[in-house]
Amino acid sequence: MAQVWSGLFNEISHKPLPPPAVSCVLNPFPSPCLPPCACFQLLKALTPEENSLCQHGLYFQDGQRRVDYVLTYPVKKPSAGRSSRQSTHLLTENAVARSLRHSSSLLSSPAADVELGCPGETFGGQEDHKAFRREEFEGKLRDMGLELEKDEDTKVTGVGFVKIHAPWNVLCREAELMKLKMPTKKVRLQSSGVVEKISSLVSKVLEPLRPHLIVESHSQAHIITCICFFPAGITSLLGSGVYTAAYPLHDLLYEEWANYSVFYKYQPIGLVRKYFGEKIGLYFAWLGLYTQMLIPASLVGVIVFLYGCATVDDNIPSMEICHPKNNITMCPLCDRVCSYWKLSTACGTARASHLFDNPATVFFSIFMALWAAMFMEHWKRRQMRLNYEWDLTGFEDEEVSSDHPRAEYEFRVMQKSLSKDQKSKMEKLTCRDRLPAYMTNIVMMLLMIGVTFAIVFGVILYRISTKAALHMSSNPITRNHVQLTVKTTAAIINLVVILILDEVYGAVARWLTVLEVPKTDKSFEERLIFKTFILKFVNAFSPIIYIAFFRGRLVGRPGSYLYVFESYRMEECAHGGCLMELCIQLSITMLGKQLIQNNLFEIGIPKLKKLIRYIRSKQGAFQEEERQKKLQRYETDHFLEPFAGLTPEYMEMIIQFGFVTLFVASFPLAPLFALLNNIIEIRLDAKKFVTELRRPVAARAKDIGIWYNLLRGVAKVAVIINAFVISFTSDFIPRMVYQYMYSPDGSMHGFVNHTLSYFNVSHFQDGKEPMDPLHLGYHVEICRYKDYREPPWSSTPYEISKEFWAVLAVRLAFVIVFQNVVMLMSDIVDWLIPDIPKDISLQIHKEKILLVDLFMKEEQGKIHILESSYRLSTGCKENCSRSDNNNSTAAHPRSGLHTNSTKSL
Amino acid sequence: MAQVWSGLFNEISHKPLPPPAVSCVLNPFPSPCLPPCACFQLLKALTPEENSLCQHGLYFQDGQRRVDYVLTYPVKKPSAGRSSRQSTHLLTENAVARSLRHSSSLLSSPAADVELGCPGETFGGQEDHKAFRREEFEGKLRDMGLELEKDEDTKVTGVGFVKIHAPWNVLCREAELMKLKMPTKKVRLQSSGVVEKISSLVSKVLEPLRPHLIVESHSQAHIITCICFFPAGITSLLGSGVYTAAYPLHDLLYEEWANYSVFYKYQPIGLVRKYFGEKIGLYFAWLGLYTQMLIPASLVGVIVFLYGCATVDDNIPSMEICHPKNNITMCPLCDRVCSYWKLSTACGTARASHLFDNPATVFFSIFMALWAAMFMEHWKRRQMRLNYEWDLTGFEDEEVSSDHPRAEYEFRVMQKSLSKDQKSKMEKLTCRDRLPAYMTNIVMMLLMIGVTFAIVFGVILYRISTKAALHMSSNPITRNHVQLTVKTTAAIINLVVILILDEVYGAVARWLTVLEVPKTDKSFEERLIFKTFILKFVNAFSPIIYIAFFRGRLVGRPGSYLYVFESYRMEECAHGGCLMELCIQLSITMLGKQLIQNNLFEIGIPKLKKLIRYIRSKQGAFQEEERQKKLQRYETDHFLEPFAGLTPEYMEMIIQFGFVTLFVASFPLAPLFALLNNIIEIRLDAKKFVTELRRPVAARAKDIGIWYNLLRGVAKVAVIINAFVISFTSDFIPRMVYQYMYSPDGSMHGFVNHTLSYFNVSHFQDGKEPMDPLHLGYHVEICRYKDYREPPWSSTPYEISKEFWAVLAVRLAFVIVFQNVVMLMSDIVDWLIPDIPKDISLQIHKEKILLVDLFMKEEQGKIHILESSYRLSTGCKENCSRSDNNNSTAAHPRSGLHTNSTKSL
Repeated sequence: MAQVWSGLFNEISHKPLPPPAVSCVLNPFPSPCLPPCACFQLLKALTPEENSLCQHGLYFQDGQRRVDYVLTYPVKKPSAGRSSRQSTHLLTENAVARSLRHSSSLLSSPAADVELGCPGETFGGQEDHKAFRREEFEGKLRDMGLELEKDEDTKVTGVGFVKIHAPWNVLCREAELMKLKMPTKKVRLQSSGVVEKISSLVSKVLEPLRPHLIVESHSQAHIITCICFFPAGITSLLGSGVYTAAYPLHDLLYEEWANYSVFYKYQPIGLVRKYFGEKIGLYFAWLGLYTQMLIPASLVGVIVFLYGCATVDDNIPSMEICHPKNNITMCPLCDRVCSYWKLSTACGTARASHLFDNPATVFFSIFMALWAAMFMEHWKRRQMRLNYEWDLTGFEDEEVSSDHPRAEYEFRVMQKSLSKDQKSKMEKLTCRDRLPAYMTNIVMMLLMIGVTFAIVFGVILYRISTKAALHMSSNPITRNHVQLTVKTTAAIINLVVILILDEVYGAVARWLTVLEVPKTDKSFEERLIFKTFILKFVNAFSPIIYIAFFRGRLVGRPGSYLYVFESYRMEECAHGGCLMELCIQLSITMLGKQLIQNNLFEIGIPKLKKLIRYIRSKQGAFQEEERQKKLQRYETDHFLEPFAGLTPEYMEMIIQFGFVTLFVASFPLAPLFALLNNIIEIRLDAKKFVTELRRPVAARAKDIGIWYNLLRGVAKVAVIINAFVISFTSDFIPRMVYQYMYSPDGSMHGFVNHTLSYFNVSHFQDGKEPMDPLHLGYHVEICRYKDYREPPWSSTPYEISKEFWAVLAVRLAFVIVFQNVVMLMSDIVDWLIPDIPKDISLQIHKEKILLVDLFMKEEQGKIHILESSYRLSTGCKENCSRSDNNNSTAAHPRSGLHTNSTKSL
Repeated sequence: MAQVWSGLFNEISHKPLPPPAVSCVLNPFPSPCLPPCACFQLLKALTPEENSLCQHGLYFQDGQRRVDYVLTYPVKKPSAGRSSRQSTHLLTENAVARSLRHSSSLLSSPAADVELGCPGETFGGQEDHKAFRREEFEGKLRDMGLELEKDEDTKVTGVGFVKIHAPWNVLCREAELMKLKMPTKKVRLQSSGVVEKISSLVSKVLEPLRPHLIVESHSQAHIITCICFFPAGITSLLGSGVYTAAYPLHDLLYEEWANYSVFYKYQPIGLVRKYFGEKIGLYFAWLGLYTQMLIPASLVGVIVFLYGCATVDDNIPSMEICHPKNNITMCPLCDRVCSYWKLSTACGTARASHLFDNPATVFFSIFMALWAAMFMEHWKRRQMRLNYEWDLTGFEDEEVSSDHPRAEYEFRVMQKSLSKDQKSKMEKLTCRDRLPAYMTNIVMMLLMIGVTFAIVFGVILYRISTKAALHMSSNPITRNHVQLTVKTTAAIINLVVILILDEVYGAVARWLTVLEVPKTDKSFEERLIFKTFILKFVNAFSPIIYIAFFRGRLVGRPGSYLYVFESYRMEECAHGGCLMELCIQLSITMLGKQLIQNNLFEIGIPKLKKLIRYIRSKQGAFQEEERQKKLQRYETDHFLEPFAGLTPEYMEMIIQFGFVTLFVASFPLAPLFALLNNIIEIRLDAKKFVTELRRPVAARAKDIGIWYNLLRGVAKVAVIINAFVISFTSDFIPRMVYQYMYSPDGSMHGFVNHTLSYFNVSHFQDGKEPMDPLHLGYHVEICRYKDYREPPWSSTPYEISKEFWAVLAVRLAFVIVFQNVVMLMSDIVDWLIPDIPKDISLQIHKEKILLVDLFMKEEQGKIHILESSYRLSTGCKENCSRSDNNNSTAAHPRSGLHTNSTKSL
């Protein structure tokens, strides 16, 4: 439908109207699509809401015709007071009545339109050129059958509004001119009885999930379709200042979409697309599909988590740790201030670890890799289906507009040619011109990534030093909650840093891209997205990657610990692997990011801005406020923020997708949290688009562009990261190796003992031994630590043992097997699910045949007309020449007959 | 151009000719494309070759006009003797002269054509209906401007020939009707001075590589284009027996393409496509690109091999083995009959191994993985370019014809509905109907794969038992050449088995696919290809995979060897890894397959068949033979084999691609051998297509279909297989591990000793110790064997040692790193090289704009015509009615003027 409007506007502004005869030939179906009674019912259905809606300026003064589009222009002498407004109202009423009469006749009559519009002001003594062009344009709009209402006497001083309404029959006519497809859509595939029954049952079950729309199909089109504008033709008028702004109105979508109370329903994507255009429609369709796909993922995730909960008591390793008889003495966790400790005190952590580190996790991460592949495939299909339904199959991304160089680029080229003063005019920027910018880019990107790493390292240092400091504390309560305090504060610091850096990186990426001077808008956007993506991803995931793969691995061993700055010992993981810590970090980062960035930033900050604006406008006092309240919708829309692009929305979602897929092996609840967030996110975004932003001009798009590639990239990386998380971060492989290679009875009994190496306390370096060696109440000779090393009594004490290498080999083998199996399965999923849904491809094929038929018929029709005109001309010539020759004879009646017969052909 | 002919034929057979007035409107450029002088020059250029060519029937009797297409039909009374032929000649000369006159006038005049054709025979007493239809059809062909020559008095008795020639202007006219593209092709991109110079230099250098064609561009089109037929319209005439056959002629392509002497030149792909159609054109284009891409690959391969040769003397491990001082005593290679041996006797093998097992191999396999990615990308681009040049961008695979159910499928459906006797007519085969066929398929496929494995196992047994038997031989020469004899015979047996099974599997795959009863021809072909591919791949690669990954790994250790059938010890690899053996097996299989299958089967067997035919036709004696020699080209073509599809050609190439990529780490010369083979292969296939097969009907295709996916699959598998070959088959990783983890001085000295474990000969099982323990001349207490195991004096003798696990871990880590790095690099290559060449996408864009302009103009033109016809009719009506009314007044001159003025509009 956007095309329809685009067509309308373009034709008006660029070309003369075609003569009526041709128009008739082009439009062989001038009948209105909707029977009059249906139209009537529709209007009836709206009446209950009419009063409230009319007050907001959604309708013309008659309360019946919707305002579909608004044009604004500057008014020189603002008229004030109620009386004048009243007259405007009356006059426009007349104008509307006249335009209704005019709209049926298609001949242009600018002379008749001169008297229309605002009352005796614009057409006073000084006849403005702009006003004339406006009149001309509006006259043409009326000729197309559109209905206009002018309103200069509004609350917004100095601005005149032209409200435009497109009657249904005009839209139908234009739609039929554009769409050859419509009639064929009804060709549905016949499915067998059982399938039909099941599908009808399914649709019945899903009925409450569908958005509640007042009227069906055609009427839907009536309510929302009409408002789809693509004012390409009007841009020149806007550019020359004839009009100041052109925008469609916000409207009913609010109730059935941008509303938290309808969170469980499907989105009315068709309407969203009609209202906002394909690009935004695709975003919401993608977000909807993603959210929908998260439902099974979070279900399985919850089941996996519950399985962990249910089996926690049967878990032999944690039982062994918790058993009081199993009194293993562990080596101190820090130098001097810490002392020996009993393994059984780690009971809680060990039990909690089992929740996230059990065989079901392996299954779950395979499942999630396939889920990601399925998601990509489903999106391809959904996109294809939407392309078909939205009539984009033949559409290619407008290379013309996006190939146009940006102003900044042209300026740079001009600058360069001026400065160089060369004979041959420079036509483009070479690599050498761009080298400084590229170098700055690379250096800055590396610097930013370096900053992220430095901050991660800083947080590590904070953790180590705080832990040491707290251990030294005399307060026993402080000392007991060391772990919890340190972990929580560190995670919160990380989160805050991530949030701050996210904003900084966004600005840096934009600055770097501006520096690069990309040639086209498309390339600008892609480069910006790519840079932002890298920086934000590194920012969000580097602390997590540190915990997953590096923490606890660079520790050294008792007697030869690894030190940072020669005094801080590297931190170890709690017993039970680092998976638990990874899980904590993940959940805090993900939840914090979502809660703070989405809800606080996206809801709170606009509210705050409003509050500030409110406080500031206190001097304007009450009448100002009251005026604000009584403003018409087209006036309030004038004050909204302009639309700034979809990049932040997509970026937020792709980072969430990273959380859901990349480390899902360690945190099976991630999909659930993402689901909960997205259910809010959809409505939040919808609200933002409908109420907080001025309605964006509809942009066409066939796909989600670079985002799809980024998603694919994340899904690919997820496979390998999950493989590493399972084999290296979790204790899954050591357990397997113990059970099948070392266990005497094939059970897990003795696993804990197997993973702990022996250390002779006499081998402590001087000054590193615990200050309080009798902390446990007895003298310790041998303490244990978690590693695979030779015991002190072996020929090579504290060397890496054979078990270490065996476990490492199995871990690596697992990575290879996991990665290749999952990739193979993803490829099979990719191969099994066709990219184009079967019914769509059949439909496209059928339509092609119909189209060919139509063209054939038209071609034949053309031939017929040509033939008849040929015969006519020859016939006439013959006839006339004969009547010339046979002057005043009986030839005349015969020639008259001939003329008739040729005409009837 | 195929479209042109298709259009011609379809129009003739299905539709009435359009009236001339319309034709004029549709074809606004009736001027010939070639100026007359150029035409003349062209004909001049041909004269030197004329004589020889005319004798082969490539031209009409006048020796000037080419035979572009041949139709054959049955002749009832064969006429014999020279005299009659002479008269035919004369008569056809007249006919041609007349047809030339006729061809300029487009009106059909069947009455004038009746006397044409063979002399007073066909139009005798019994006027045949078929002959009438033939006449009608031929009349229409002449009306289209084609020139015909009939010849019933040929050597082929009972067959009449209609030779057809399409004059240049007819082709031009049709081409212009079809192609809107032609004029826009000249819009070339302006490149900067330096680039232009370089490209002109490159094209000058490449000049001798281009095929030598007598005339350029337009004339090319004249010589070859004219012969492209797509006789869709004629099929009904063929079906009803009006004609017996319709085929175009083999011609000049032979000299410039199907000829070994032009092996170094580019293929004239455009001509091949014009001659054989897009499908075959794409095959040769693909084969050409593949061969071209093999040049850098084989160059790098040769360099890698030469690097191996150059460094063989600096290789410390082989120096250590060969050094006589390094007198290591090895454990016997077989039970009882073999004795201890000196490692220095393996010197030769060790040195040879280095040729294929050096660090350059790692680089080469990374290079080849990227090469494969580059190849796929380049093919995508080439395909896109060809699609554009061949005007296929808008073409989609004819789903209609391929969606049509096969006769077998419909028969099965009918059979089923008959046997079940159900009320509702069955419309398709359900899964349950197909279950038996599917089960048979799976079982047979598994059985076939099982057979392959069994044969591989059989060859292993042969090798083991022969080796044992030969070792027992009393002949010392036999015993000295055991290794060589066994390896060579085994490889030859493998090769023969592969060749035989290849044929068997081809038949089995076809049988299984027929059993499945696929619905459409397309699905039949895909299923057949898929099955054949799997079976042939397993067949070709299972012995190689055994050698690469299993041989020498399941050996056991001295004192506890692994036995097959309790008496045969599993075979070990020679010292220096199995890479050497893998290399031998690969080269024998690859070379043997190529030499025997391609050259023997493809050249030898047709020659043999000809010989047999010759011997059989001895009874026909000399006159028969002589007649054969003097046959016209259109007569000889009648006797050629029909075209059977491209599947065998593609299959051969994809298996070769497998040899080139899958195990390239072990055999860097594979690309070179493939290149040499393919240079012959292109011309061989070309020869086959031009001379041995009847010319196939041109089929359209946009891509190479399923083969592309198979190639991608092979390239993907190649990455992981090469990773495993490098890390597990070669000694690369153990060497690295030794150098960086165990070597005392960081050099390779001591590596050989490190890889050998110790064995106390007193631990031999009873009856397994060597019969001749003093074979080396001294008493052996400790012998060495290649493995990482604990020595006899350790606490756990003969257990797998820590080194084993360390090496294994590094090996696996290498696989992960290699696979992911190569995959990442392939993805980057994929991402860096755009799928559509820049110039093509710009061209397409420009054309789209031109097309839109054209349509707009035509639409306006239509409007003008309609307008004028409308005015004409109203004017005429007015005029006539006025002349009716104003009888015998002065109105006539005015009306005449009016008529003229409307006509001029």
